[in-house]
Amino acid sequence: MRKLKMGMIGGGKNAFIGAIHRIAANMDGLVELHCGAFSSNPEISRESGKELFLPEEKCYATYQEMIVKESGLTAGQRMDFVTIVTPNFAHFAPAMMALDHGFHVLIDKPMTLSLDEAKQLQQKVNETGLILCLTHTYSGYPMVKQARKMVADNELGKIRKVMVEYTQGWLSSLFENEGNKQAIWRTDPAKSGISGCMGDIGTHAAQLAEYISGTKIIQMCADINIVVEGRKLDDDGNVLLKFDNGANGILVATQIATGEENGLKIKIYGEKGGLEWHQMEPNSLIIKWPDVPTQIYRTGNSYLSNNAMANTRTPSGHPEGYLEAFANLYKNFALTLSSILEGKTPSAEMLDFPSVDDGVRGMAFIENVIASGKSEQKWFDFKI
Amino acid sequence: MRKLKMGMIGGGKNAFIGAIHRIAANMDGLVELHCGAFSSNPEISRESGKELFLPEEKCYATYQEMIVKESGLTAGQRMDFVTIVTPNFAHFAPAMMALDHGFHVLIDKPMTLSLDEAKQLQQKVNETGLILCLTHTYSGYPMVKQARKMVADNELGKIRKVMVEYTQGWLSSLFENEGNKQAIWRTDPAKSGISGCMGDIGTHAAQLAEYISGTKIIQMCADINIVVEGRKLDDDGNVLLKFDNGANGILVATQIATGEENGLKIKIYGEKGGLEWHQMEPNSLIIKWPDVPTQIYRTGNSYLSNNAMANTRTPSGHPEGYLEAFANLYKNFALTLSSILEGKTPSAEMLDFPSVDDGVRGMAFIENVIASGKSEQKWFDFKI
Amino acid sequence: MRKLKMGMIGGGKNAFIGAIHRIAANMDGLVELHCGAFSSNPEISRESGKELFLPEEKCYATYQEMIVKESGLTAGQRMDFVTIVTPNFAHFAPAMMALDHGFHVLIDKPMTLSLDEAKQLQQKVNETGLILCLTHTYSGYPMVKQARKMVADNELGKIRKVMVEYTQGWLSSLFENEGNKQAIWRTDPAKSGISGCMGDIGTHAAQLAEYISGTKIIQMCADINIVVEGRKLDDDGNVLLKFDNGANGILVATQIATGEENGLKIKIYGEKGGLEWHQMEPNSLIIKWPDVPTQIYRTGNSYLSNNAMANTRTPSGHPEGYLEAFANLYKNFALTLSSILEGKTPSAEMLDFPSVDDGVRGMAFIENVIASGKSEQKWFDFKI
Amino acid sequence: MRKLKMGMIGGGKNAFIGAIHRIAANMDGLVELHCGAFSSNPEISRESGKELFLPEEKCYATYQEMIVKESGLTAGQRMDFVTIVTPNFAHFAPAMMALDHGFHVLIDKPMTLSLDEAKQLQQKVNETGLILCLTHTYSGYPMVKQARKMVADNELGKIRKVMVEYTQGWLSSLFENEGNKQAIWRTDPAKSGISGCMGDIGTHAAQLAEYISGTKIIQMCADINIVVEGRKLDDDGNVLLKFDNGANGILVATQIATGEENGLKIKIYGEKGGLEWHQMEPNSLIIKWPDVPTQIYRTGNSYLSNNAMANTRTPSGHPEGYLEAFANLYKNFALTLSSILEGKTPSAEMLDFPSVDDGVRGMAFIENVIASGKSEQKWFDFKI
Repeated sequence: MRKLKMGMIGGGKNAFIGAIHRIAANMDGLVELHCGAFSSNPEISRESGKELFLPEEKCYATYQEMIVKESGLTAGQRMDFVTIVTPNFAHFAPAMMALDHGFHVLIDKPMTLSLDEAKQLQQKVNETGLILCLTHTYSGYPMVKQARKMVADNELGKIRKVMVEYTQGWLSSLFENEGNKQAIWRTDPAKSGISGCMGDIGTHAAQLAEYISGTKIIQMCADINIVVEGRKLDDDGNVLLKFDNGANGILVATQIATGEENGLKIKIYGEKGGLEWHQMEPNSLIIKWPDVPTQIYRTGNSYLSNNAMANTRTPSGHPEGYLEAFANLYKNFALTLSSILEGKTPSAEMLDFPSVDDGVRGMAFIENVIASGKSEQKWFDFKI
Repeated sequence: MRKLKMGMIGGGKNAFIGAIHRIAANMDGLVELHCGAFSSNPEISRESGKELFLPEEKCYATYQEMIVKESGLTAGQRMDFVTIVTPNFAHFAPAMMALDHGFHVLIDKPMTLSLDEAKQLQQKVNETGLILCLTHTYSGYPMVKQARKMVADNELGKIRKVMVEYTQGWLSSLFENEGNKQAIWRTDPAKSGISGCMGDIGTHAAQLAEYISGTKIIQMCADINIVVEGRKLDDDGNVLLKFDNGANGILVATQIATGEENGLKIKIYGEKGGLEWHQMEPNSLIIKWPDVPTQIYRTGNSYLSNNAMANTRTPSGHPEGYLEAFANLYKNFALTLSSILEGKTPSAEMLDFPSVDDGVRGMAFIENVIASGKSEQKWFDFKI
Repeated sequence: MRKLKMGMIGGGKNAFIGAIHRIAANMDGLVELHCGAFSSNPEISRESGKELFLPEEKCYATYQEMIVKESGLTAGQRMDFVTIVTPNFAHFAPAMMALDHGFHVLIDKPMTLSLDEAKQLQQKVNETGLILCLTHTYSGYPMVKQARKMVADNELGKIRKVMVEYTQGWLSSLFENEGNKQAIWRTDPAKSGISGCMGDIGTHAAQLAEYISGTKIIQMCADINIVVEGRKLDDDGNVLLKFDNGANGILVATQIATGEENGLKIKIYGEKGGLEWHQMEPNSLIIKWPDVPTQIYRTGNSYLSNNAMANTRTPSGHPEGYLEAFANLYKNFALTLSSILEGKTPSAEMLDFPSVDDGVRGMAFIENVIASGKSEQKWFDFKI
Repeated sequence: MRKLKMGMIGGGKNAFIGAIHRIAANMDGLVELHCGAFSSNPEISRESGKELFLPEEKCYATYQEMIVKESGLTAGQRMDFVTIVTPNFAHFAPAMMALDHGFHVLIDKPMTLSLDEAKQLQQKVNETGLILCLTHTYSGYPMVKQARKMVADNELGKIRKVMVEYTQGWLSSLFENEGNKQAIWRTDPAKSGISGCMGDIGTHAAQLAEYISGTKIIQMCADINIVVEGRKLDDDGNVLLKFDNGANGILVATQIATGEENGLKIKIYGEKGGLEWHQMEPNSLIIKWPDVPTQIYRTGNSYLSNNAMANTRTPSGHPEGYLEAFANLYKNFALTLSSILEGKTPSAEMLDFPSVDDGVRGMAFIENVIASGKSEQKWFDFKI
């Protein structure tokens, strides 16, 4: 095994998510930043790379140049994978090009601008046999993995109800008019696609609900809103859900919940017990029983599942957070790639990161939920 | 002012809510138990009264007997009001009879078995000028009153979103088949009416949402479920809401949330700030702002509104709970009656208890939400 | 069984703790206010009684008059017990007189002004065979009783460490100079005795620690402080503890913890597990284990001990608080008296309230902790 | 600026703290692992280095070899600093040697085996002008920095009381006899020095108390215990404190608090307000006031101090944890070194990491607290 070489697309100076990706990639020492096309502006790309201690020849003017030039290098000298941290509209083209040139891909969510693009990527991945990892960060938390395991092991019994909410307040005013870059592209249909809030955070909530519960949404009834006047994309929504195992559910995603930070919370109830997890206190998983005291499962304890432990770096009581969850995606992706490079079959634990199929499902969620919101029909079938 | 005399209908031995009512009535020393028809079984009524230290002649065999005999006594000797703590189906007749005989009424929620009955009661109350108090306990909490005041004072700005949930787990199995009296009548259409969960706890959630937000539900889209096989009434539901001020919302009421105790929680978001309150930690009201630290308002502190303080009995840090909230309804009702008895006009603070109009609204909520649940129409107008 | 008749000494208009006692006495309908000497000012006593709906002849000018006159009435007509809710300095004389006239006594803590008085009361109680209940409220909480039971049952193993703290902030400035009656007498040596903070709240902390742990303090090393300049009695202290089973501990009591409300918290660790309880969230008892998830025991659940359940009035999830804990003392005291009146032996559950022996121990705590604070000796033996 | 080259001493395969240091060093991409002497066993050192993707020539057999060889290289080619992650007894010699050869040093706490060694290191640092960073991790948390700033700005008024506790349960049994490497060296006087618990975690608590409060301990009265029979070093202690500004305090450090994970908590009270911080929920800082609602300051919000923000990597609501706090030490140390390398004066923010002076103070704390524990004198002066 060797350190994997990462080529980054996007994530130049002042970009939020690019910096997060680099921290996540750095954390475990399995990946090194090898090259980048950090900005559509070549000058900014060069400066950004320099700040990241890259040699000048590894700071490319465009992603096309990067992919072409790197693919001309020998294995071990060239980048092993690209990581795409641009706004949604600029995911598809570089991902396709990277796959076409034999590079694995790690990509921010939502995967593409449309379900159609997503399906094309899925087909390309299937054809090439390359790996695509989608950064649904929240499924990287150890206690989320513990929750999924306990559901899978039937500890809670048949799942009956899923309540997931993702509340943010940062768009409770027209923040996009105050020059905030994050707000600007996220509220711009040309850059974000057909959805704002549902695409940005609703997809996380839906993915988390399906990841933990092991069930799939099959019907929804959506109330999709533009609450702040003057905005072009949804900033709020409430959705009734039906799952394929018969469970019902509710999903709330909102960016106008004034005063909320990043309130992703989930509660799932089965015949035998219930669970609750809050992203903002991620090291506790609350398990509720009808006849015995509620239990608090905590990150880093020996009673946890192997997979939860494998995604933890510190002893119990040393809080891990968002960056560690993010790093778990990189770590598992890197272990998977390394395994493949060494001609081995990756283990199930290594493969525990969101894939291109999750990306397709996420884009389908966006298209279905927006369509349901516009429909006067009560129950809307989830179609892919 | 003198102690008010209470006649109780229902609440015999082993009844849950009757004991709660008596504690609430006792707490402030403003009300005394004067007589009762505690059971449809005269023997149990007598035994119950004896255990409550009533003289035998004040333990009536039937509520009819009680109302007739007491109405024959002179003012000050007879009961001042009846409190009705029977199951839903046995609310209407005694309430009407009591009003017809000139007695004020305190009544458990939901007020009646149907909206039609509720409207008749409302008409009777309006005709007689008597007082009817409905025990939506949760609006008796001081921090709920504080929340309502802060919304009314526009501290949060225009309200945009209301999220209310009421999760219980006690009906996650067929508890009604195990001899539990509470479960038996609550799941029996003949005793409970057309709804189980929505009538029992959904009404509380809706009342709380409207009480705090100062807005009214005008449309809903309900998913109403019987989750536990073999049950005859809904034990679970999720409802999308529209309010008359343009706000949207979500209401979840469920009794199959395995492991949950009595999880009534509400979050309300306005243009300027948000609030959060949990019934199980009722002495904290969380106020969230976009640009300054979150605040924790706590029961008993001098910075609270007069009305919150008037509904508090202890200094801050001495937790008050459900019984104190319940007692606040009795206290305000008693102060109102005393005021009327003395020929005075009750103050707004005294009158701060749910009235017959809330009872009508609650029954309308039940009928609308069940109808919406059965409808294939997405948005269903709230009709009274 | 009949309602017990209570005579109140102190607790006139605007008195804090008198109102609390009346609520606690009222709550379960086992006790009625029969008479009172509510103030050293006869006029205020009369007015106070009137507000409490007492007939004029039951509003006595002095406690002496009350005790003498009531003792002249026949059993069943006269008061059954006195409740003494005056400041510390006015506990001893009325308690002795009441006992001398054959009345049981309920008394606020600390029991007396000095250990010597306390011992005299103890002797009198022992001689007369009458019952004395001391209102260490916090031992009335159901989860405190659950904690005590789990320790007694050795669920936590041998107790090794006790950490108890009681933090208040209300005396962080010279509040006594602003006309606050509570502050004035509590900081006045003539009314409070040799200690302020340790007598007022340190005794609660010590009693709670011993009540739950089932062990007794045998040595202490105290740092007793007057933090706010100009005050005459301690307002703060930290104490190292040794217990008779070999455990060590720490006790903090402070009234200058600016911003704290009534922060009584206790943690106890044994060989096998630990427990944690916070008075301000009293319905949760946290039990910690080395190898399995932390458990949250909650008031009102069927898995609790009989005694915890017997001291609970509502189903789980309906929070009980300080007044219910206080009422549990009254209830158990009343059940004990009723049992005795009926010639029966009270059960252990009925007798679960602090007694005159706790009062002696509390006064000994005060005298020892103040002496230790003044001593230059490190470890100071707890002497009674 | 360029990436700084780190040479690691200790931290071979299966070592706990070495892995933590590498993550912390990696996180921000400012430091790269350049070489190491990872174990006193050359074979293990080599294997460990290989696993970390180091070339064989950079895996040294001994730290002496590493220091000598690296010092022979030219600047920019050789390591810039050493990081020492061995048990306590093996801190001093490599640190001295590194300083003697011109290398900056980052070192795990406690700094040395004795106060005398610490003073020698301090002298050497002062002579050489090199930088020594000591990893008191907890002062790296952004909300700890915010707390320190608010105290320094007098927002809480004059500090009067400090309550700090550090509770762990992992040594509640003789874990060292079960082969656990962490337990073995920590409970061995030859490897740990004269103290177990106080050295391991008491020092953290003391440093945190002084860091936030801006005051210094000047007297203590310690109760130091070996609770688990058969252990050679203290595993528990309670300490009364006096600070140089007149404040009093209490420090508890224990490793026998069965069921506790890593419970470092601090409360500080001033004349105007109080603060509370819990390491296990590190993104909230609770600020308490006498007359207005309690405030929750949260990591990542714009209302925080510049320094708190500079030590944060994610937006509010994205929890940061122990590794980020640890990485803040590395980051600030690296920025300081880079600044020096570039001939600039490091800013106060860069220099905000524990220094050799903190190391001396920590060793003095250990020697004083153990001596106080053995002394029969009540108050023991803190001597350096």
